[in-house]
Amino acid sequence: MTDSSTMSFPVTTIASIGAHEGQTVTLRGWLYNLRESGKLLFPIFRDGTGTIQGIVPKAAVTPETFDTVRNLTQESSVIVTGKVRADKRAPSGYELDVEKVEVIQRVPEEAPFPISLKEHGTDFLMEHRHLWIRTPRQSAILRIRAEIIKAARDFLDDNGFTLTDPPILTPAACEGTSTLFPVDYFGDEAFLTQSGQLYIESTALALGKVYSFGPTFRAEKSKTRRHLTEFWMVEPEMAYAGLDDLMVLAEEFISFIVDRVLTRRAADMKVIGRDITKLETIKAPFPRLRYDDAVAMLNEAHAKGLIEHPFEYGNDFGSPDETYLSSQFDRPVMVHRYPANVKAFYMEPDPVEPKYALCVDVLAPEGYGEIIGGSQRIASYELLKQRIEEHKLPIEAFQWYLDLRRYGSVPHSGFGMGIERAVAWICGLDHVRETIPFARTLNRMYP
Amino acid sequence: MTDSSTMSFPVTTIASIGAHEGQTVTLRGWLYNLRESGKLLFPIFRDGTGTIQGIVPKAAVTPETFDTVRNLTQESSVIVTGKVRADKRAPSGYELDVEKVEVIQRVPEEAPFPISLKEHGTDFLMEHRHLWIRTPRQSAILRIRAEIIKAARDFLDDNGFTLTDPPILTPAACEGTSTLFPVDYFGDEAFLTQSGQLYIESTALALGKVYSFGPTFRAEKSKTRRHLTEFWMVEPEMAYAGLDDLMVLAEEFISFIVDRVLTRRAADMKVIGRDITKLETIKAPFPRLRYDDAVAMLNEAHAKGLIEHPFEYGNDFGSPDETYLSSQFDRPVMVHRYPANVKAFYMEPDPVEPKYALCVDVLAPEGYGEIIGGSQRIASYELLKQRIEEHKLPIEAFQWYLDLRRYGSVPHSGFGMGIERAVAWICGLDHVRETIPFARTLNRMYP
Ligand SMILES: [Mg+2]
Ligand SMILES: [Mg+2]
Repeated sequence: MTDSSTMSFPVTTIASIGAHEGQTVTLRGWLYNLRESGKLLFPIFRDGTGTIQGIVPKAAVTPETFDTVRNLTQESSVIVTGKVRADKRAPSGYELDVEKVEVIQRVPEEAPFPISLKEHGTDFLMEHRHLWIRTPRQSAILRIRAEIIKAARDFLDDNGFTLTDPPILTPAACEGTSTLFPVDYFGDEAFLTQSGQLYIESTALALGKVYSFGPTFRAEKSKTRRHLTEFWMVEPEMAYAGLDDLMVLAEEFISFIVDRVLTRRAADMKVIGRDITKLETIKAPFPRLRYDDAVAMLNEAHAKGLIEHPFEYGNDFGSPDETYLSSQFDRPVMVHRYPANVKAFYMEPDPVEPKYALCVDVLAPEGYGEIIGGSQRIASYELLKQRIEEHKLPIEAFQWYLDLRRYGSVPHSGFGMGIERAVAWICGLDHVRETIPFARTLNRMYP
Repeated sequence: MTDSSTMSFPVTTIASIGAHEGQTVTLRGWLYNLRESGKLLFPIFRDGTGTIQGIVPKAAVTPETFDTVRNLTQESSVIVTGKVRADKRAPSGYELDVEKVEVIQRVPEEAPFPISLKEHGTDFLMEHRHLWIRTPRQSAILRIRAEIIKAARDFLDDNGFTLTDPPILTPAACEGTSTLFPVDYFGDEAFLTQSGQLYIESTALALGKVYSFGPTFRAEKSKTRRHLTEFWMVEPEMAYAGLDDLMVLAEEFISFIVDRVLTRRAADMKVIGRDITKLETIKAPFPRLRYDDAVAMLNEAHAKGLIEHPFEYGNDFGSPDETYLSSQFDRPVMVHRYPANVKAFYMEPDPVEPKYALCVDVLAPEGYGEIIGGSQRIASYELLKQRIEEHKLPIEAFQWYLDLRRYGSVPHSGFGMGIERAVAWICGLDHVRETIPFARTLNRMYP
C-alpha cells in the first residue's frame, strides 16, 4: 500500500532496520507501550518482526505530533517515520528518533486492548489467543516455531527426501480406536489421521526417501502439559534403511534444527529468556542406550533414592523416568530396542534377539520427554500378517499395507517427531499450549 | 544399511549417477521392466529418483548373475552393482553395465505386481494407488508436487513471511455449512477447516506477513475433475497491504514457482511429456482485467459464437468462461473487482465504487481455471459487523474475528492457492486425482 504522505522514505521492518542506520525510514505497526518522562516520550512500537523504542522530545516535533504520541493507546495502529540511531543499550541495538506519526486506528480508552502489561490467568489468555499472540514473548515463540519447521523441511529436502502428503481422512486406525476422532464421510465412517506412517511406507517404496509433514489428531481425554488433540508431525521414511541409519538420521536432523534456531533466531531466544548454553551442546552423535540398560539405570537410581517409584520392566517410561534418564546426558539420548511385545505391531524384531524391537525413542534433555519415536518396519509378509492378527486388527483394512510386503519388500525405517514437543523443548516452555498458534485441547477449541 | 557384499562400491541414486561416470557403483531399487535380445538382457531399474537401463551381456557376467536377471519379475527389489556409462541415447543420459545383482525379494510369477505396463482403468489404478505411485509418470508428478510446495514455501520464507498454522478443528464455518465435515469433539460439534484465512488475519496483525499451509476440506457432493474433498492450500496474508500489493505478490509467487519447476524438475517434466513452452512465458507481470471488462469479453465472444452460453452479469465464471478468458493470454490473468454482492462477506469494498469488492481471482492458462482467490479484507468494525449480520452468520462465533477490527485495525490482504489445482496446471493433467498421493473424493477414501 502506498500513501503519498509516507512515500518519500523507505518502508522497512524492525528486524531489518540495522541496514538503515542514520537514515529516515517508515515503519508500519502498532504501539506496544508508552513511557513519559518530562518533555520526553518513549513509545515502543512493534511491527510483527520485533519491537523498537522511539524517542519523541517535545522540542523536536510539532505540538500535534507530540500530542498524538502522548495520547496513543496500546495496540493502536500507526505508521511511524523517524531516523534510525544505533544505541548499544537498546535490546535490538537501535532506537528511532520519531519525526512523524500517522494513526491508522486509535484504540479508545473506554474499550482498551484486553491484554495489558500486567499478569493474566491462562484461561483468559487462551480465550484471547488471537490477541495474546501479539505480545513479544508469544510472537517470538511463533517465529521460532516457524524456524524449526523450516529447518526440518530444509534438512530433509536437501538430503534427498521427497515430501509426500498422506491423507488426513483415513478409513482405518493405525493403533487402537479409543483415541480417534470419527468423521461422517458421506455416510461412511472415516477417522482423522494419527500418523502418516503407513502411507509414507508406500511412498518410500515408490520414491526411496520421503517424508510427511502435517497435522495429526488424538482424542485423548488427558489434560497434561504435553498433550494437544491436534498437533503437527514430521515423519521421514527411508527404503533400504535399518535402525542404525535411522538413529544417524535422527541425531543429524535434531542437531541441524537446533543449530538453525541458534543461528537465525538468537534475538527471539533472548526475548523469551531461553538459556541457550543448554542447546549449544546439542550436536551429533547422541548417546545410544539399550532399553535394558536404561532400565538398569532407573533401578540403580531408585535404589539410591533418586527416583520415587521402582520401574517395572516392560513398561514405557513415565515422565519422571524420562526426566531422570535425560538428566544423565547433555544432549538427547536415544533409547533403542524396547521389548517387542510392548511396542507397535509393525516393528521389525531384532534378528539377533527377536524379543526386542528395532525401535528407538529419542528423549529430549531437561525433562522434555520423548520427541521422536521410530523403528525399522517389518519387511516379511508372513510376519506382518501374523502381527496384524495377533493385535486383532481388521485384516481387510490392511491389505494394501500388506501389498508393500508382497511386491518388492525391502528393509525400511522411519520416525515421527512431534513439532510442538520439539518447540516446547527448544524454547524451554512449561506447556505445549504456547507452541502452536491455536492450541486444541480437551477443553478448548476457541478461538 | 550396510551389507558386506556391497560395501566396496559407493551407494548412489539414479538421479545423481552422473557424478559417477566411469565408476562402479551400487544402486538399491526395483526392477521396472526387462527386455531380452539374444545374449543381451536390458533390465530397467528404478530407485525412486528415476529409472536407468542396465545392460547384461551373457559373456560379461557369471551364468548365475545372467539367470538371476533373466528371471527377475516386475517390482522385485534388487541391489545392483555396475559401471556407469554415458549414453546420449538414454533418456537419463546414462546406462549401467551390470556386474552383480542381489535380489532382496523376488515377486513370484503366480502373484505378479498388479500394475503391468499395459493400460488399466482409472478405478483399478486408484484402488491400487499405493502401488500405482511407483510407475514413472506418477512418481514424476509427486516429485513435481513436492517441488511446487517447496518453491511456494521458500518464496514466502525468503520474503519475510512467517508460517503460522491455523487450526484444522474449528468451531465455526467461514462460508456456509452445507459443505462442512462435522466432527464430534468430546460432545461439542467441530468442523474441519475450509480455509485458515480468519485465523491468519489474526496472526498477520501479530507478525506482519504470515502464511498458512495445510489441508482443507470440502464435503462437496460434486464429481468433477477439479474437486477433491481434501486438498492443500497455501494462504499468505499481509498486514498493511492492499489489493495492488496482493496482485503483485500473486504474480511474483506464481512466476517463482513455475521457474523453480522448470529449472529443477526438467527431467520429470520430460517423463510426463509436458509441453514446457507453455510454461516458459509465465513471468510477472500478469495481465489484469476488471470483472466488468472480462464480462464484456465474454459477451463479445458469445456474439461471435465462440462460447455457447451467454454470460449473466453478476455470476461467478463457469468453466467454459474461464477457459475462454484464459485462452486470450499467454500467462495467468488476474480478474479483479467482482461485484461485492456475489463475493464473500469479509471483502473490502472499493472506496472508488463500493459496489465492487477489492478482490482478485487468478485464472490459470490452458483452461485450468481459478488457482488463486484473494482480497483485501474489511478493516472497519462497523462494516464487518453489518456484513456478518446481512449474511446471517452467528455473530458470537465471530467476536474474536471482530476483535481484529477493535484493536489496531489495519488494511490487510491475502489470497489462497490450491496446491492440487496448481499441480494439475503445471503438470498439464486432466484430473486432480493424480496431483496428490492419496486423493479423497466423493466415492473414495481407500487406500
Ligand atoms: Mg513412546
Ligand atoms: Mg472463485
